Amino acid sequence: MTTRPKNALIMQSGGCTNVLNSSLFGIVSEAADAGAFGRVHGASHGLEGLLEGKTVDLTDVPQATWRRIARSPGAALGSTRRKLTPDDVPIVLGRLAALSIGYWFIIGGNDSAETGHTLSVEATKAGYDLTVVNVPKTIDNDLVMTDHCPGYGSAARFVALAAMGAGADAEAMGAASPITIQEVMGRDTGWLAAAAALGRREERDAPHVICLPETPVDEDRFVAQIEAAYTRFGFAVAVVSENARSANGVLGGQCEPWFVDDFGHPYYDGPAHYLSGLVSKRLSVRTRYEKPGTIQRSFVAAASRRDLTEAEMAGRAAVRAAMNGHTDVIVTLERAPGSAYECITGLAPLDAVGGKVRTMPSEFLDAAAGELKPAFLRYLRPLVGRLPRFARLG
Amino acid sequence: MTTRPKNALIMQSGGCTNVLNSSLFGIVSEAADAGAFGRVHGASHGLEGLLEGKTVDLTDVPQATWRRIARSPGAALGSTRRKLTPDDVPIVLGRLAALSIGYWFIIGGNDSAETGHTLSVEATKAGYDLTVVNVPKTIDNDLVMTDHCPGYGSAARFVALAAMGAGADAEAMGAASPITIQEVMGRDTGWLAAAAALGRREERDAPHVICLPETPVDEDRFVAQIEAAYTRFGFAVAVVSENARSANGVLGGQCEPWFVDDFGHPYYDGPAHYLSGLVSKRLSVRTRYEKPGTIQRSFVAAASRRDLTEAEMAGRAAVRAAMNGHTDVIVTLERAPGSAYECITGLAPLDAVGGKVRTMPSEFLDAAAGELKPAFLRYLRPLVGRLPRFARLG
Repeated sequence: MTTRPKNALIMQSGGCTNVLNSSLFGIVSEAADAGAFGRVHGASHGLEGLLEGKTVDLTDVPQATWRRIARSPGAALGSTRRKLTPDDVPIVLGRLAALSIGYWFIIGGNDSAETGHTLSVEATKAGYDLTVVNVPKTIDNDLVMTDHCPGYGSAARFVALAAMGAGADAEAMGAASPITIQEVMGRDTGWLAAAAALGRREERDAPHVICLPETPVDEDRFVAQIEAAYTRFGFAVAVVSENARSANGVLGGQCEPWFVDDFGHPYYDGPAHYLSGLVSKRLSVRTRYEKPGTIQRSFVAAASRRDLTEAEMAGRAAVRAAMNGHTDVIVTLERAPGSAYECITGLAPLDAVGGKVRTMPSEFLDAAAGELKPAFLRYLRPLVGRLPRFARLG
Repeated sequence: MTTRPKNALIMQSGGCTNVLNSSLFGIVSEAADAGAFGRVHGASHGLEGLLEGKTVDLTDVPQATWRRIARSPGAALGSTRRKLTPDDVPIVLGRLAALSIGYWFIIGGNDSAETGHTLSVEATKAGYDLTVVNVPKTIDNDLVMTDHCPGYGSAARFVALAAMGAGADAEAMGAASPITIQEVMGRDTGWLAAAAALGRREERDAPHVICLPETPVDEDRFVAQIEAAYTRFGFAVAVVSENARSANGVLGGQCEPWFVDDFGHPYYDGPAHYLSGLVSKRLSVRTRYEKPGTIQRSFVAAASRRDLTEAEMAGRAAVRAAMNGHTDVIVTLERAPGSAYECITGLAPLDAVGGKVRTMPSEFLDAAAGELKPAFLRYLRPLVGRLPRFARLG
């Protein structure tokens, strides 16, 4: 008599990306191809839904739907920012038991790695046989133990194209609108903002200044750099990470909050808003600020083909890892040795990843000077794919 | 003895678009193909440069450069917001005479149509033989006498994809970040903001509210509409034109200006900023605002292929019109009769276009109710091209 194979549960967690659903597709496809599990369930809005017993049976979703979902931004299961608390653990284990879940796949970032590891440990303690495999995901590209993260290449592509476009625009507008400051996402690190440099082929090209969380912003130096570019080229573009800070903390923290909620929590405008005011005032040139917000992580025409492929690949690798008996691990993306870019998957223990943040290393960024190094662009280029080449007259 | 053909001058004016350089390419290519002119010059930053004698000889720019410029956003000659003043007229005529300009091509919007017409009239008065042909250009799509304007289709494509993406993101994020307000360009009209509706296939799809300059924003109604969508779908997206106004004037005009320049001119944040504060406060849900700014008109991956083609076509038509003896005219784009979309060019007198603004007509917009009509989407779809189709589970 054969045992009925155990069921699987998938969840998506954290900020969305252009390829989060490609990983979901990778998991369900590989599971279907392998016939490895009984039913495949999805948790609605991750932990949030799971705690309330909100799951959806994905087993019979038609392939045509999956193909379309794989190319949709967002998170088809719904995502969440809910973190696991100690009180959640028995509830989650109860939910898993009720659905006969033996395999748990979590697509997420470092918070999700902590969740996966904790549940793995707690399940073992409780004598519950649970395989946990995470699939990396974040536009912030800040997970340790992996060469890069699915989601990053596409957001980086958006940011690079946005800087190229804003540069062409500001240069053309000249006196009418010569200075633009763009604000880019990135919780603790500058990987995404730094991607704005990828389209820069000559000194004249935007962006002329990039501010990353790794390097505190000196306001006088920032204005001087903008002024230098403006004087020399007739226009200037800066790309600023949303968490760029001054040496004293929040940039513009001395300003009035733009909104105070009913609990009295103040919300400050981002650094681009603040810095554009500063530059306008100091240089007496009206300065635009731009904030693409969630557009940068959901704009489907900016998706990197390689990112889409690798996200699916990471999902498939998670299923194979689970079938091969691995647990409490996260899939990693590794760069195969050799001159041509080739990505292979590996595995890392979840507790080596959870809660850790990979800031930009010194071979990519001189953090003291705030200068990106050529090795970073070599690293980034294959993830983003080919960029168009704009031309100038003369 | 044959007379040496007269020289031509091209200028680009107003806000940049993704296809402004396609029209430039169309003019120089058609001119080269026809061998119609002597030298072809470009004015640097339009009137600004012309007044100072800053022009560039384009005749010998290699074809390979043109091909690349044709696909670059911005304005390769440089653009300007400088309007023609009566004092400028003799200076401009002097500059034209110095370069033996007999043909003047202006790629621009309704300010440029005024410039072209004025110069045409003044040249005639002065006994200067000048042919003036304008090529339409504006992401605002607000020129009269033309079915649509080059530049609009690409910006509309960006706006439609941005709303689709932000919708997928907000829906997926759910409680963590359920409401987004995007601010879209548009000087006096809602053509561009209205394009956000193009990706909407069902009621659940973003955007749930669109605010256009044609319909004053009632703040209570706006919040109620957002709340209704949020309650029903768990997320809500609004797209707001940068010049959306309340019945009393500037939205949020009662707020502190975010910046006051040295001359004491106050600058207010746009309506998305203001409305997101309002919604956050009223619904006690933190609400994002997004402002893609110049990205929406320069993001090359959002360019509409048809828009690129038509922009070039309009440039070529301008040269043929000039060669056929037309002057003081602007090229128009017309929809050929028949069920399949086909665009042909026509001509309209410049004085019928200059300084006029085409707001959205009643067959496209019920301005009193602020409701777009299906005829608008039928009008828009061929200009934007095929949009991806996102999928949901269940």
